[in-house]
Amino acid sequence: MTIAVHGYATQSPTSELAPFTFERREPRPQDVVIDILFCGICHSDIHSARNEWGGTQYPFTPGHEIVGRVAAVGKDVSTYKAGDLVGVGCMVDSCRHCASCEDGLEQYCENGFTGTYGGEDKIGGTPHKTTFGGYSDKITVDERFVLRIPDNLDPAAAAPLLCAGITTYSPLRHWKVGPGQKVGVIGLGGLGHMGVKLAHAMGAHVVMITTSPSKGEDARKLGADEVLLSTDAAAMKAAQNSFDFLLNTIPVGHDVDPYMALLKRDAAMVVVGAVEPLTNVNGIPFIFRRRSMAGSLIGGVPETQEMLDFCGEHNITCDIETIAIKDVNEAYDRTVKGDVKYRFVIDMASLES
Amino acid sequence: MTIAVHGYATQSPTSELAPFTFERREPRPQDVVIDILFCGICHSDIHSARNEWGGTQYPFTPGHEIVGRVAAVGKDVSTYKAGDLVGVGCMVDSCRHCASCEDGLEQYCENGFTGTYGGEDKIGGTPHKTTFGGYSDKITVDERFVLRIPDNLDPAAAAPLLCAGITTYSPLRHWKVGPGQKVGVIGLGGLGHMGVKLAHAMGAHVVMITTSPSKGEDARKLGADEVLLSTDAAAMKAAQNSFDFLLNTIPVGHDVDPYMALLKRDAAMVVVGAVEPLTNVNGIPFIFRRRSMAGSLIGGVPETQEMLDFCGEHNITCDIETIAIKDVNEAYDRTVKGDVKYRFVIDMASLES
Repeated sequence: MTIAVHGYATQSPTSELAPFTFERREPRPQDVVIDILFCGICHSDIHSARNEWGGTQYPFTPGHEIVGRVAAVGKDVSTYKAGDLVGVGCMVDSCRHCASCEDGLEQYCENGFTGTYGGEDKIGGTPHKTTFGGYSDKITVDERFVLRIPDNLDPAAAAPLLCAGITTYSPLRHWKVGPGQKVGVIGLGGLGHMGVKLAHAMGAHVVMITTSPSKGEDARKLGADEVLLSTDAAAMKAAQNSFDFLLNTIPVGHDVDPYMALLKRDAAMVVVGAVEPLTNVNGIPFIFRRRSMAGSLIGGVPETQEMLDFCGEHNITCDIETIAIKDVNEAYDRTVKGDVKYRFVIDMASLES
Repeated sequence: MTIAVHGYATQSPTSELAPFTFERREPRPQDVVIDILFCGICHSDIHSARNEWGGTQYPFTPGHEIVGRVAAVGKDVSTYKAGDLVGVGCMVDSCRHCASCEDGLEQYCENGFTGTYGGEDKIGGTPHKTTFGGYSDKITVDERFVLRIPDNLDPAAAAPLLCAGITTYSPLRHWKVGPGQKVGVIGLGGLGHMGVKLAHAMGAHVVMITTSPSKGEDARKLGADEVLLSTDAAAMKAAQNSFDFLLNTIPVGHDVDPYMALLKRDAAMVVVGAVEPLTNVNGIPFIFRRRSMAGSLIGGVPETQEMLDFCGEHNITCDIETIAIKDVNEAYDRTVKGDVKYRFVIDMASLES
């Protein structure tokens, strides 16, 4: 027995997303079945759908910023009950016994976590061996990977918290960003706009670092205290050695040197977007002030819940544009062009029509 | 009144080091005058003498791994007295009031420390405006920048501790290297051989990472527990995700990716040698295990003293080849070729003959 699911999938790197029917497993004792209400569109969805990172299995259903209501729970599930507002992020499984899993850092699972889409399904229960994501009306997930969405948050605008939110929250927390610190957020897209909101809510003095004056103005509305134009050589020079932390959300390879010089002694720049080669990485800015560059990947399940609770307390959600699923291909094209403030979210009710 | 000093200097980027007479200041109340016994040859001496980093002022006298005996002290000096065995490292002055100086991290002085050679002399007392280094028979230094050399250490072999020793000790301490940790030292030269000795003395399991099997064998004699040949792709793959810390002493630009992959989650690679552009720096190894890359510069005065005391307790000195100063130009050529185990030290008694 399986659950029939309606969704959208792409059949090849060059084909568009189109209606697709597939199966989810019936709930095991520890599983939660969720009626999906909303799913955000992350740039990773597009890279994967188009096989730009390699390894995509087709048919392919993206989506890892999922918000929905619990439809049913397995007999051992005690945390959730039917009707609860819940979320699922980038992971639906991990080994659960490695050092990272034991530390609640499943995103660094040493045996590899199972991605919400395109992952190798080790639980099974359906004919397909690959996980299908949230551009669909239902999902079955082990309760360990289900998050609770605070009731005061708009469910659609909360969806991107599951990826864009935790991707920026985790490094801000890990590097202990807080009051009295000057924090730069580099790049204003889906990640950057959450970085500004979260760093501001954590009490830091937030500087938007961007190439675009208009993005700078937008960032002020989101909570940035200052704007630094990275194209303004004099301003960049004047800002050297002044930042306690830099959250670098640039989604492509880029020159590192100009940003490293902005850091104070012993401060770090954390890269969360660029999975391509970084260029112009000179040893001198690292050596002469003991600066560091690090990376960070989403967040573990406990920290994702902490982030959602933090957002509930501070009433933080993403700035979104809600679309019907039939418009997803156009939304992809607009996302690639950076033409969205700041995240598209699919209203899954549109799937039925 | 000034003190007449005999030393060696070079007059241009292409000329050889040759005898040179200059002046030091008479001791101020807080100064120590030192009869120099030994001075190590650091690769930085060569880069500076040949103006490879730009900005060298001629005549130029290198040398910042100085060991000698106190000849005289100013009236306010209480820490040292005539006859004490002392050292001077890479710095002879700093602003003393910035946050870094107040933290005892004069190497990161926000107003710029005064290098032992080629620095802008802000104290003065001589006609020349640039500091002259330790390839000479005497030096006048503020007591704050004078270190005590433990009496049980060989003075010649202790000289390179003032640069090669502290450059490797400081990051090992700052990143809390100790028992139970697997630590890689990348590159076996003047810095790397001290890294192996110090990490071993701190109780870590030390792995020499080198391209050369013969250097690997040498490293075992210095205290390395294992050797990892970076040219052995299978061995490098097998060693992925296994290191708690990497001390990267490679003195030139190089590919970073293969080393980053060796680190465990949350572990750091610290670059102490490369002041040139680093290549093949991909975001993925940083992001997927929250790894970091940092830099580190020598060490502050308090930590340099701590390092010397540590070396005294553990009876650690450098492996050196002692030369007469007339052979310094040949020693430079051999250093450039890597033909030294592991540091040349000039016996300053040879200056008189």
